[in-house]
Amino acid sequence: MSEKRLQEFLETVRSDLDRTVNFWVKHSHDTVNGGFFNCIDKDGKIYDETKHVWLQARQVWMYARLYKEMKRFQKPEILEAAIKGAEFLQKFARNPETYRCYFALTKEGKPVKIQRTIFSECFYLMAMSELGIVTGKQSYKKEALMMMDKIVHWVMEDDTEIGRQSLEGAPPHSSLAVPMMMMGIISQIETMDNSLSNKYSKATDWAVAEVFKHVKVWIIEGSNDGYSERCNEMELLYWRMLVWTAVNSRGSGGRLMTPGHAIEAGWFLLDLASRKNKTELAETAIQTFMINPYNYGWDNQYGGLYYFLDVDGWSPAQLEWDLKLWWPHNEAMISFLMAYKHTKDVKYLDIFARIFDYSYSHFVDKEQGEWYGYLDREGKVKIRSKGGVWKGCFHVPRALMMCEQMLEAMNK
Amino acid sequence: MSEKRLQEFLETVRSDLDRTVNFWVKHSHDTVNGGFFNCIDKDGKIYDETKHVWLQARQVWMYARLYKEMKRFQKPEILEAAIKGAEFLQKFARNPETYRCYFALTKEGKPVKIQRTIFSECFYLMAMSELGIVTGKQSYKKEALMMMDKIVHWVMEDDTEIGRQSLEGAPPHSSLAVPMMMMGIISQIETMDNSLSNKYSKATDWAVAEVFKHVKVWIIEGSNDGYSERCNEMELLYWRMLVWTAVNSRGSGGRLMTPGHAIEAGWFLLDLASRKNKTELAETAIQTFMINPYNYGWDNQYGGLYYFLDVDGWSPAQLEWDLKLWWPHNEAMISFLMAYKHTKDVKYLDIFARIFDYSYSHFVDKEQGEWYGYLDREGKVKIRSKGGVWKGCFHVPRALMMCEQMLEAMNK
Repeated sequence: MSEKRLQEFLETVRSDLDRTVNFWVKHSHDTVNGGFFNCIDKDGKIYDETKHVWLQARQVWMYARLYKEMKRFQKPEILEAAIKGAEFLQKFARNPETYRCYFALTKEGKPVKIQRTIFSECFYLMAMSELGIVTGKQSYKKEALMMMDKIVHWVMEDDTEIGRQSLEGAPPHSSLAVPMMMMGIISQIETMDNSLSNKYSKATDWAVAEVFKHVKVWIIEGSNDGYSERCNEMELLYWRMLVWTAVNSRGSGGRLMTPGHAIEAGWFLLDLASRKNKTELAETAIQTFMINPYNYGWDNQYGGLYYFLDVDGWSPAQLEWDLKLWWPHNEAMISFLMAYKHTKDVKYLDIFARIFDYSYSHFVDKEQGEWYGYLDREGKVKIRSKGGVWKGCFHVPRALMMCEQMLEAMNK
Repeated sequence: MSEKRLQEFLETVRSDLDRTVNFWVKHSHDTVNGGFFNCIDKDGKIYDETKHVWLQARQVWMYARLYKEMKRFQKPEILEAAIKGAEFLQKFARNPETYRCYFALTKEGKPVKIQRTIFSECFYLMAMSELGIVTGKQSYKKEALMMMDKIVHWVMEDDTEIGRQSLEGAPPHSSLAVPMMMMGIISQIETMDNSLSNKYSKATDWAVAEVFKHVKVWIIEGSNDGYSERCNEMELLYWRMLVWTAVNSRGSGGRLMTPGHAIEAGWFLLDLASRKNKTELAETAIQTFMINPYNYGWDNQYGGLYYFLDVDGWSPAQLEWDLKLWWPHNEAMISFLMAYKHTKDVKYLDIFARIFDYSYSHFVDKEQGEWYGYLDREGKVKIRSKGGVWKGCFHVPRALMMCEQMLEAMNK
């Protein structure tokens, strides 16, 4: 059934990408200070002028990638905005001595906040690297490589410069986000310069091994209230492998699962498996990182993917656990279309269609562009803004671009 | 009308307090390590053994206060549990060198997390002080006074020991929570030793002045979408003064309003005004800190107080903004009953009745005791646990105890 819809999928995704890019071009550019506003209401009004570095850098990356990959976005205004954004980042986001990047800046570029994580730095690297590819300028590429060495050092050798205080009772915590991010930046660096593939092969192996630590076999006892409420007998046989958000962490933290995050890891792994010709890895990527989290994370009553779940069925500590967020649906669209492309098995396209239909009837603003980011469990818009501290010009256009490319190849 | 319900209110609140205290006595005591479990499911099962210091200390305070104030709780098991909790805190929660208190401990007492705020320390002080009053032991009182001097130093003189990094672009931020907490601990210390009232009069004046900085006159422009959606013409004349959560903070942070927090500040101020015979302060406490935030914060469609609002009507940055949390309703019960007691004006008792009715038809678990903490906007239970990182044996029993005492005096 869903195979007959390939042309419809392509056209919908293509016009949505146009609308989305148009939203950011029209409303987010700070023509006075450079960089981008990212706290933007549904209709484009700026409600907060703080500039969040994750989103500044992701928008530079996104513009550069669109410029590079999609003919219709090879326009001077896209490239110029990316360059101005990169200049703003180089001037203000990175501390010139420590190489640490801030988390938030004032619109003029003064530092407001710094985090004790490596994500600002990773997105900074992505921005510099992609712009280096597009412009051919060595200074951007050099900046990306210098940051890469710093991040590898912090992640794999010594994280004291990140500034986390280690306390005796705190369990050695491992977050799925870190190896995933590592896979993302290695792939970025390889795209920039394929001869560096060997240099980072050790880091790649580490990242894949780390991601796999988050797969646990779930021993089903069937004794827990919340568990039996959510599962029926048939399902009991099915949910055997789940991807945990954190490992080694006791209590609620250790039982936390983020379906969207597992599914995102799925296409990172499938992409890696395709590039390196690893059949077994591809199968695991699809079954363990896409299908199982999708089955576990889909809300059968109201549709959509839950944000957080406790794998033993307790109430998660996160008050926002049952919200439907935009980005897990973006990542799931990429994942299941990629699984279909890889296997030609229509069951993955059926799941893509289900996520597509939920998204286009709930998240998408067909008039003003971009997606709403936060729906309540029932699917009503809960936060009406299009951009905020964690949402900018990234997940939606990246997913639409990648889906358009895959669908275009399928429709040929 | 609501005056005829005084006896009903008293009986309901009294039996609810019994049920609530019973819940914590039955399920939370760690008889092996001392201290209390605070991550507890609806039926009493422990789902995480982490011990959160705010809640450990608040439970010690609550038990000691119940023991002191309510004849039926003057039982050895209450006092003994408070003493064991205090011993656990003294042994593990406070760093003996820095006087900083941790935020979370393992069940055995090893430190898991520390915050860059003063709240763990304030609740530690409250626990020591109240237990000092109940037991008469000087060591507890001395501990409370030493902590008091530390906190006054950190808040009013120099906060470098708290460890917040100050960045050039970060606006000088002032949170309503800090002066409120200061009023709370000064009141506690005065209850312990009234002769210290003069010693802290400067700090009291500072706290009241700080709280008043959070009152802003809202210039109504009527131009904002969200604003006009929520207000009608009549209301426009009414909402003139609102209490901001943070001052000096730009953007979303500076526009954030927490109705429950303003209403809680209301009874802190009214209590202070009563004790010090300040008529004008009492009036402001009721009108500006109770009535206005209640009017602004009440959800006319589904009932209950919103958690967060943006005073200009944008979507708040907090994903949980429209949830109905238990504690604002506890604080509002105290506030409006106290306003009625103070003024004898039945309109405040009518509001108390409205909050009472919402709470007893949504939050209260009449079978297993304690209240649910988190409802969705429509009023359905969203997190089924009774205790968690931020919810323990404190707001519910404190409100029920204070309401029972006020209602008892009214029913005489």
